[in-house]
Amino acid sequence: MENYLDRINEVVEEDIIPLEEDFLLRGFLSVLPKLNECREKVKKLGLWTPYLSKKHGGMGLSLLEFASVSELLGKSLLGHYCFNSQAPDIGNIELLKDRASSELKNKFLSPLISGEIRSCFGMTEPQNPGSNPIWMDTLAIKDGNDYVINGNKWFTSSADGASICVVMAVTDPDAENKYSKASMFVVPMDNPGFEIVRNIPVMGHEGEDYNSHAETKFTDCRIPSTYMIGDIGQGFMLAQERLGPGRIHHCMRWIGICERALDLMCRRVSTRELNPNQFLAEKQTIQNWISESAAEIYGARLMVIDCAKKVQEFQTKGARKEISMIKLCVANVLMNVLDRAIQAHGALGITDYTPLAYWYRHERGARIYDGADEIHKNLIARIILKNYID
Amino acid sequence: MENYLDRINEVVEEDIIPLEEDFLLRGFLSVLPKLNECREKVKKLGLWTPYLSKKHGGMGLSLLEFASVSELLGKSLLGHYCFNSQAPDIGNIELLKDRASSELKNKFLSPLISGEIRSCFGMTEPQNPGSNPIWMDTLAIKDGNDYVINGNKWFTSSADGASICVVMAVTDPDAENKYSKASMFVVPMDNPGFEIVRNIPVMGHEGEDYNSHAETKFTDCRIPSTYMIGDIGQGFMLAQERLGPGRIHHCMRWIGICERALDLMCRRVSTRELNPNQFLAEKQTIQNWISESAAEIYGARLMVIDCAKKVQEFQTKGARKEISMIKLCVANVLMNVLDRAIQAHGALGITDYTPLAYWYRHERGARIYDGADEIHKNLIARIILKNYID
Amino acid sequence: MENYLDRINEVVEEDIIPLEEDFLLRGFLSVLPKLNECREKVKKLGLWTPYLSKKHGGMGLSLLEFASVSELLGKSLLGHYCFNSQAPDIGNIELLKDRASSELKNKFLSPLISGEIRSCFGMTEPQNPGSNPIWMDTLAIKDGNDYVINGNKWFTSSADGASICVVMAVTDPDAENKYSKASMFVVPMDNPGFEIVRNIPVMGHEGEDYNSHAETKFTDCRIPSTYMIGDIGQGFMLAQERLGPGRIHHCMRWIGICERALDLMCRRVSTRELNPNQFLAEKQTIQNWISESAAEIYGARLMVIDCAKKVQEFQTKGARKEISMIKLCVANVLMNVLDRAIQAHGALGITDYTPLAYWYRHERGARIYDGADEIHKNLIARIILKNYID
Amino acid sequence: MENYLDRINEVVEEDIIPLEEDFLLRGFLSVLPKLNECREKVKKLGLWTPYLSKKHGGMGLSLLEFASVSELLGKSLLGHYCFNSQAPDIGNIELLKDRASSELKNKFLSPLISGEIRSCFGMTEPQNPGSNPIWMDTLAIKDGNDYVINGNKWFTSSADGASICVVMAVTDPDAENKYSKASMFVVPMDNPGFEIVRNIPVMGHEGEDYNSHAETKFTDCRIPSTYMIGDIGQGFMLAQERLGPGRIHHCMRWIGICERALDLMCRRVSTRELNPNQFLAEKQTIQNWISESAAEIYGARLMVIDCAKKVQEFQTKGARKEISMIKLCVANVLMNVLDRAIQAHGALGITDYTPLAYWYRHERGARIYDGADEIHKNLIARIILKNYID
Repeated sequence: MENYLDRINEVVEEDIIPLEEDFLLRGFLSVLPKLNECREKVKKLGLWTPYLSKKHGGMGLSLLEFASVSELLGKSLLGHYCFNSQAPDIGNIELLKDRASSELKNKFLSPLISGEIRSCFGMTEPQNPGSNPIWMDTLAIKDGNDYVINGNKWFTSSADGASICVVMAVTDPDAENKYSKASMFVVPMDNPGFEIVRNIPVMGHEGEDYNSHAETKFTDCRIPSTYMIGDIGQGFMLAQERLGPGRIHHCMRWIGICERALDLMCRRVSTRELNPNQFLAEKQTIQNWISESAAEIYGARLMVIDCAKKVQEFQTKGARKEISMIKLCVANVLMNVLDRAIQAHGALGITDYTPLAYWYRHERGARIYDGADEIHKNLIARIILKNYID
Repeated sequence: MENYLDRINEVVEEDIIPLEEDFLLRGFLSVLPKLNECREKVKKLGLWTPYLSKKHGGMGLSLLEFASVSELLGKSLLGHYCFNSQAPDIGNIELLKDRASSELKNKFLSPLISGEIRSCFGMTEPQNPGSNPIWMDTLAIKDGNDYVINGNKWFTSSADGASICVVMAVTDPDAENKYSKASMFVVPMDNPGFEIVRNIPVMGHEGEDYNSHAETKFTDCRIPSTYMIGDIGQGFMLAQERLGPGRIHHCMRWIGICERALDLMCRRVSTRELNPNQFLAEKQTIQNWISESAAEIYGARLMVIDCAKKVQEFQTKGARKEISMIKLCVANVLMNVLDRAIQAHGALGITDYTPLAYWYRHERGARIYDGADEIHKNLIARIILKNYID
Repeated sequence: MENYLDRINEVVEEDIIPLEEDFLLRGFLSVLPKLNECREKVKKLGLWTPYLSKKHGGMGLSLLEFASVSELLGKSLLGHYCFNSQAPDIGNIELLKDRASSELKNKFLSPLISGEIRSCFGMTEPQNPGSNPIWMDTLAIKDGNDYVINGNKWFTSSADGASICVVMAVTDPDAENKYSKASMFVVPMDNPGFEIVRNIPVMGHEGEDYNSHAETKFTDCRIPSTYMIGDIGQGFMLAQERLGPGRIHHCMRWIGICERALDLMCRRVSTRELNPNQFLAEKQTIQNWISESAAEIYGARLMVIDCAKKVQEFQTKGARKEISMIKLCVANVLMNVLDRAIQAHGALGITDYTPLAYWYRHERGARIYDGADEIHKNLIARIILKNYID
Repeated sequence: MENYLDRINEVVEEDIIPLEEDFLLRGFLSVLPKLNECREKVKKLGLWTPYLSKKHGGMGLSLLEFASVSELLGKSLLGHYCFNSQAPDIGNIELLKDRASSELKNKFLSPLISGEIRSCFGMTEPQNPGSNPIWMDTLAIKDGNDYVINGNKWFTSSADGASICVVMAVTDPDAENKYSKASMFVVPMDNPGFEIVRNIPVMGHEGEDYNSHAETKFTDCRIPSTYMIGDIGQGFMLAQERLGPGRIHHCMRWIGICERALDLMCRRVSTRELNPNQFLAEKQTIQNWISESAAEIYGARLMVIDCAKKVQEFQTKGARKEISMIKLCVANVLMNVLDRAIQAHGALGITDYTPLAYWYRHERGARIYDGADEIHKNLIARIILKNYID
């Protein structure tokens, strides 16, 4: 029954990890044909979009079961992509599946699930703090049967090459409830009012295709009002709903990265000699790093699993404290483990001959995106302190 | 079914915590009469020695169930004592129950279980490193039907007032297998060859009665050979067997302390004003401490529970890595949480008007006893690295 | 010229450190007679109250020169006391010398300088946050030629056995400038309106005589208005003036403690065997602790010296940022170094057979008194950020 | 007299920092023409190669004086290059100046000083640990009046575009003193036996020209024996001599980076609103980061200055402990400050719109090159512990 984990792991080890070198040294597009082959193989093996119900073409895994899958996929830079489980598509698919009209589902959900098209998610704006999601300048004004959107976004991940953008825009700037100002829309990216201004240079690279973060611009971007997801004013609520499981997915992916980094560290120190026949693994400092990493990963994984159970039972809303705790802790464990693994590799650790330096660069954002550490600390404390106010 | 946790918690909150002030300001003996009353109450409530089988007079809790009890008891400095679940008696009771002869059981186990007598455990020696348990100078020489023990020990906790000492001594200095050198004995403390040299001054106090750590001396201390626990040469093995669950008990107790410290911190900051009507709880640094503490405790508890499950399933031997990881992590979480709680209390935090300063002092040892941090890190790394050696 | 440092060091090593055992195991009063002998010796050697000008009976050392002395004295728990350089007397002497009337000087300064009497400093109040020095309930009401003081204080260090208390009290509750509300007074402690309520139990001990922290109470405590130090409303300013050099003294004392702790650690690990002929000093973790401690001490000392120079040149006011930085950093370096030294000592580290456990307990307050870490961080940031506001 | 610091600072602020954007977004070669203009300007201003004596065309600054210059230059990614003070040329220039024959000086030193050519330094080998500098496979065999070199190196920084390589090679594999095995040579890079295999991909980039790290190969590379620097067997000694001041240069450069990062952080938080009119600078966590960064920089700078003084007085050999302490501490302060600055910038921090992400990537190596943290900790501890061995 659980042997799908073995099968998934085999694909990761046998098919995906060997593709990393090309990705690291020559970029995403260079490896895309092989990734597509791999995606076809995953489909044939019946492991495609595993988090979806069988009816939708997935494996029907629970959030908890998918957590274990996500850890396995996370071991490789390219794992989630090959299983059509990559952000931001996974979040958009869930959103459309649960909240979109039949029209939207027919048009966009099916090709997303099949992997024919990709999507992106436009929320953060360069001029406004990501930590304050209700401060937003992008406006969607009703005009007849349409909405006309104006504004700009950035860190719209994977916009390059995507077909649709799910976008948050203010529909009622004067709403009494500040959490009801915004709504969510699907914008086809061939819309003449939509433009990718540039791929943002992040950690030395603008990236390309799926592997990029765009700055985007909406100029009198006109879309039918039926392209709204959910109801008017639900944008913030839907974003929260989308982010809850998303944080669990990220956390398990990060644990997969940690496991891989620890494995790389152990391999390296077991074979690298400091002097003839004296291995790095014999140094107490190295041993300390291995132990500390293993213990941190042990705690992190148990927290994520426990949190996933709570989300299954009580929904995102009933596990807000736990979600914030795992987001905060696992992102930091990730950085610690990567840092130790790099240091244990010496100069090799900062080259692109291992995936460590890539994660070091591109997961530094893990402490920033989906709520910076500081936001989550504040949220946790407020939940706890509520019990102490008369 | 699980409402025994509520009942235990009620005793801790209603009966035990109110005794702390006397203990902190006037010492253990001043509070002993009331502790004994409380012990009687616990017996009447059917909550006595809860970790023992019903046959032995306990509640028949599994290791995992007792872990939750231990967390509750740990919230107070005096919790475990009131439920006859205190170290070192709990370890000695388990040891005698599982490994002693009927003679020893009849003589010593019953009064230990009933709480009539107390016991201590003599292993560490001042002149030898506790981190190397097989380097031991105390000798037990066979002489007819007796063993004659010579040597000295320290950090024999709770020797003051105890009736028996379980002692490790070398019976075969030349054993080929260095783990088979020592054996374990019961020494009645009225034996003329046994002497408490002094209660060691620890963190400013020699302590008294249960609340003390003795230096002890064996001078031609003659005991019947039937007072050996287990077989000859099993001392080290028995000590390991004793320490495995002991570490889980300690860890859950520490988590109880952490919970109490976090609670004290939250209460304090919710009522302490920095300026009229501006509470300490509003400061972001304080909120960070609360969040970090809560998250660390969350992870720590899940690790201990998971480890307890593994011990139940695979015995101590099959959970060595996990036991070392929880011992290492929880002891450090404990110190972190206490440190933050003290700092949040300001000057009050270093007084004895809260239990925080007591724990700060007397749990500093948590990173040293039962295997220093460094020992556990080494052990974890060696287990992990074993997989990387061809 | 600088060989006074050698002579001072010799007294510390030869005369004072040998007294520590008695102090640690039997308390301050047990060692007081020998301390007094030592004080006489120091006087004869011409090393008494070295920070005072020769005119006042001191050695005429600059703040910078005294910093080096303070480091030497700090190596022992009893160093400053033997050289009449202990807080709070040192601060009170400076204050009286610079700011008191001739009457007050004649009555109180001379016997303080000669060491005939001791003094204390009453500022912090239990019901008000020490971090907000202008929120104070103790009132001094003018009544004819007298002031009548009512209120209570705590952490009035060394009140037990002292002859005078320098006390902060509000003289103008409605002052427009909140920093001008309070004034400073000398209160002879045999005043019937003055009372030591108790020595506060701190870290397990109420202490005694010089080595204590009192809770004190002023009940219609009537003193002549000539007992005011400085002018009316200058209390806060004088306290700041007093605390600036005081923090440098503390920091250099802490560095002395660090040096001693590092020395004790190095001695221990160089002689303690883990296995026959394998010394603790060979373990890489221990070496890491030694290096990290030495490096932290190196930086800390240079910072304090630089800060002392700045205070000499620009007064306390011109070195506020640096004073806060050293207070913050050195207190934390102190705790780090002590923690490592204790861990390296194993069980011995938590006993009172070395001074480490005493410092661990009684210097935990270093991160709280004279401005908690958080206060200093806030102050530093505000000074820096001032440059970024248009 | 010291107003050269102002003039240098002006060049950095006015001429160099504006070039960073091009460098960050378009690469080193895109900015090289402007860099060369800037170098001409620096020459005209009389600020060229400031660390050299006036006789050699420099400003005649002492190591200590140059330390302050290096801090200013370090504020920009491109500062050292514009003043011909960049590694590895600075080290090679010093080496050739002090240790090379007249022939070598005439041929290579003059154009290096004038900036006509660049150089590189080949020491580390991919198959051998950089932390063990005496384990080296590259061989230089005497053959008549020539040496013939075979071997390969990596992390030969700035080889791309350089004209000469200073290379370490084993000349006496069987030397009794293992520190006398190797010698140092100048290898003109147009030598047919020399080859740049590739620029190593480091943190996502192979880099180009000066801004790169090459893998190099020597195949029967024949050079005249007069191209040896110093005497036979002096390679290791010369490398040490070269690295001592080099570490001070690095450290001061890192402090310059820290200052810039702190400045960028302060600017950002003073202008970034979380809510209308509520600035990031008002958050206590941000204030903590500013204070901690400022305090760490304060200590770090004082340590480097003190160390530079010691090197001036006692040469590298007499300041080994201090050199290791600053290398260790400042590299870590650097990473801390950068990490906080990035986090304070939020998503902007990981883009290439500020230099922070570049430093985050390319200074991660600071904890590895010129002796990994662990090497320096070991060295410091050994020096200290030497005093404790009988």
